[in-house]
Amino acid sequence: MTRPVCTRFHAAIELIGARWTGAILRAVFTEAHRYHEIKAAVPGVSDTMLAQRLRAMEADGLLTRQVDTGTPVRVEYHLTEMGRDLAPVIDAVLAWSHKWIPVPAGGDPH
Amino acid sequence: MTRPVCTRFHAAIELIGARWTGAILRAVFTEAHRYHEIKAAVPGVSDTMLAQRLRAMEADGLLTRQVDTGTPVRVEYHLTEMGRDLAPVIDAVLAWSHKWIPVPAGGDPH
Repeated sequence: MTRPVCTRFHAAIELIGARWTGAILRAVFTEAHRYHEIKAAVPGVSDTMLAQRLRAMEADGLLTRQVDTGTPVRVEYHLTEMGRDLAPVIDAVLAWSHKWIPVPAGGDPH
Repeated sequence: MTRPVCTRFHAAIELIGARWTGAILRAVFTEAHRYHEIKAAVPGVSDTMLAQRLRAMEADGLLTRQVDTGTPVRVEYHLTEMGRDLAPVIDAVLAWSHKWIPVPAGGDPH
């Protein structure tokens, strides 16, 4: 009899793979912390979607939102320990993508 | 200036993280090869959705569909080299999920 796939694995891969989430994680890993920096690192994401994803990732425990109430107010997003622990996942996906996903036509091959 | 997230990474994480794809990959990695075995390993997936995902994963190059034209016809799904190369990603997600995703209430803790 086939054993069901672990529900925790299933929840994890869909959490990480949700639209934009992987790219946002990668951006924050690579030192984009302010909203405009994250937006610049994730081409194509709308403000509505980015704000929604950041709220969801905060609720899921991957990011913290830190507000420094100076003038102007400065908001930064940082990885939690749970988020930082995704480093081996991100690294494995990067390695796989550089082997198997074609460089986009006319695109930056990095 | 913030560097954009690698488009190949972005494509890869959303390919793997698409609804049901991760669970189907894990099922095929753990020796579910026939349609009914994969369906049994992925609780909650409908026939329509499973058939659609299997076709998409074949088109994306992750799976091959092998038809043995006996009686009855026997269809099996196997990982391609591209699919098998996801083993480190699957392992990293499994390890992370077992640290960070709670065991579902009343669920099998495996």
